[in-house]
Amino acid sequence: MSSLVRTKRDLDMPLLTSKQLTNVSMGLLKAAGASEEEAEIVTRFLVKANLAGVDSHGVLPNLIPYIRGLREGVIKPGARFEITKETLSTALINGNWGFGQLICYKAMQLAIDKARKTGIAAVAVYNCNHVGRMADYTQMAVENDMIGFICVNSDPGVAPYQGRKRVLSTNPLSYGIPAGKEKPIIVDFATSVGAEGKVRAALYEGQQLPPGWIVDSQGRPSTNPADLYDPPLPPEQIKLAGAILPMGGPEKGYKGYGLGLAVEILGGALTGTGCSYQVTPGSTNGVYINVVKIDQFVPLQEFKDRVDWLIRTIKNSPKAEGFSEILIPGEPEFREEEKRSRSGIMIPDMTWKTLVDTCKEYGLDAQKLISS
Amino acid sequence: MSSLVRTKRDLDMPLLTSKQLTNVSMGLLKAAGASEEEAEIVTRFLVKANLAGVDSHGVLPNLIPYIRGLREGVIKPGARFEITKETLSTALINGNWGFGQLICYKAMQLAIDKARKTGIAAVAVYNCNHVGRMADYTQMAVENDMIGFICVNSDPGVAPYQGRKRVLSTNPLSYGIPAGKEKPIIVDFATSVGAEGKVRAALYEGQQLPPGWIVDSQGRPSTNPADLYDPPLPPEQIKLAGAILPMGGPEKGYKGYGLGLAVEILGGALTGTGCSYQVTPGSTNGVYINVVKIDQFVPLQEFKDRVDWLIRTIKNSPKAEGFSEILIPGEPEFREEEKRSRSGIMIPDMTWKTLVDTCKEYGLDAQKLISS
Repeated sequence: MSSLVRTKRDLDMPLLTSKQLTNVSMGLLKAAGASEEEAEIVTRFLVKANLAGVDSHGVLPNLIPYIRGLREGVIKPGARFEITKETLSTALINGNWGFGQLICYKAMQLAIDKARKTGIAAVAVYNCNHVGRMADYTQMAVENDMIGFICVNSDPGVAPYQGRKRVLSTNPLSYGIPAGKEKPIIVDFATSVGAEGKVRAALYEGQQLPPGWIVDSQGRPSTNPADLYDPPLPPEQIKLAGAILPMGGPEKGYKGYGLGLAVEILGGALTGTGCSYQVTPGSTNGVYINVVKIDQFVPLQEFKDRVDWLIRTIKNSPKAEGFSEILIPGEPEFREEEKRSRSGIMIPDMTWKTLVDTCKEYGLDAQKLISS
Repeated sequence: MSSLVRTKRDLDMPLLTSKQLTNVSMGLLKAAGASEEEAEIVTRFLVKANLAGVDSHGVLPNLIPYIRGLREGVIKPGARFEITKETLSTALINGNWGFGQLICYKAMQLAIDKARKTGIAAVAVYNCNHVGRMADYTQMAVENDMIGFICVNSDPGVAPYQGRKRVLSTNPLSYGIPAGKEKPIIVDFATSVGAEGKVRAALYEGQQLPPGWIVDSQGRPSTNPADLYDPPLPPEQIKLAGAILPMGGPEKGYKGYGLGLAVEILGGALTGTGCSYQVTPGSTNGVYINVVKIDQFVPLQEFKDRVDWLIRTIKNSPKAEGFSEILIPGEPEFREEEKRSRSGIMIPDMTWKTLVDTCKEYGLDAQKLISS
């Protein structure tokens, strides 16, 4: 496509192929100390988020903090993936503060291997940095004809129902479910009204939030994303900041709060990571993974036929007013991935400039990385 | 308490102790063909729901349909609890259409026993009648110092997000999490805006529903609970009835829909029960249970200390406007249980009359059962 031919002017607001974005991310991570394997897995998942249209979990808002993490010793390259407790069906993992993506990738792989033997597996992870997008890991289970579940806690940003101060994390979870001829079902959401990354995106883009998303530091409802962070605070004073509200709104917020609390405890207490203010502020994720081998219960083809039938039944059912189709969880991301694989990934000006500058700091030429 | 002294007039709107309600329920179930064990477990869970204030899952709206189920051969007393597939950590159960509560009680017990050996267990159940309240089963895991998860599907009543026809069931789930000195956390909710039982309760009580709960058979938003059922339809035409909406409302309904879809598949496809319109209409539940042995991951006391700390941190955090305290999931039910254990369980006139009449059909005197 002609829009992918680079000129100097293009670089001001580039449209990159996933290959080009991969080259930049790989190059920068390796220059900053990551191994080939670390750079490859981290980049794969970041670029995949960009392709899927989940830019909040993509290269741009995340790569620079990772580089900073390497520089400050928060992310430890070459960290050992250490199994500290194990049965045939379970494992507890000390991530030793390596890259979250690589730890979580290996943890999911271990869960899949264990589930293959006993039909079900649970793996819990502590001392783990930011793992990124939940859907990437449950898709690994799906590719192995298994049902995958993952959830993580992190430092607090969400108020409990009936409360107004951040005590819980956004506590996201994902289910990955294989289908037959249809695309798999990938459920992936924060148990808060929205992910913190979306509030940050609104802040950067100068947008207001929809009502019901956040309260300010005084507990007053707000649509200004700055109220979640304002006044700018050092991590130890984070209790003073605003809060995101639990999913479900003023009437049904107890559902999002209850589910979030379960995730907080699976990710925080069961892994030994700690819950709420016990979590090391920054990018810590306590990870809980659960994998189910389908044909330990029912024949795989029967299961897939049922899921296909359900997907078609849903999609063929009458639409609500204002909607021309009913989407299956994961479908918007699969579509965007196909689209961006063809059209490229648009990178906002300012964030691209930061990336080019960071490359320079490591003696790298972003333009050269792109065309390599 | 003097209000518990029976007079003929009292019987018009009785206030029963749990013992008295237990006697009526046990007597009626046994007269209708249930074994001692079946009558005991079914009654225990129904009365417990009444005590906990969850009357929709209590004796009154459920016992009469169970008696009818026995009479019509839908519920088969003495049905075999049959393990049809098994590993150290998993089991698939054919309930052979026995009482849902007894099947599910045994399935949870089996999961607990398996988790004791390998750290985690999953049990899936098919050919199972209505199992009642989710929380009862996860509490069994809690009593064994384990984390319990259960979810069930049933016949369709809920529209997908962006849709307007019932395709999914209310797909409830529960997490039970042990605490130390604090009461355990018991999360239990339908992934729809609300449980179908609550719509039915509003219908019987002549109440309107809050906006956003249901659409009528034409897909129009409604606050009239009759619109979920109207026109009265034979089961084979149930597709024509109204629908409950997924939790999350018009903006965030995709979260409730996604979670509900995962439950529909765990309960329906993984168990072989079938999803959506494949489910035998009536009171079928496809059940998926997952139990985690905590000390296979972290020391039990450490876990409990963390949960206690989190509960206190939440309860001590500032309250939202209009709330004087922050409740922990399960806390309202524990409180109501304490209260009703002292004050008794109020039984609505009309339902009590039905119960007295049904007793008569089996040659039983409700008044005698109460005082026995």
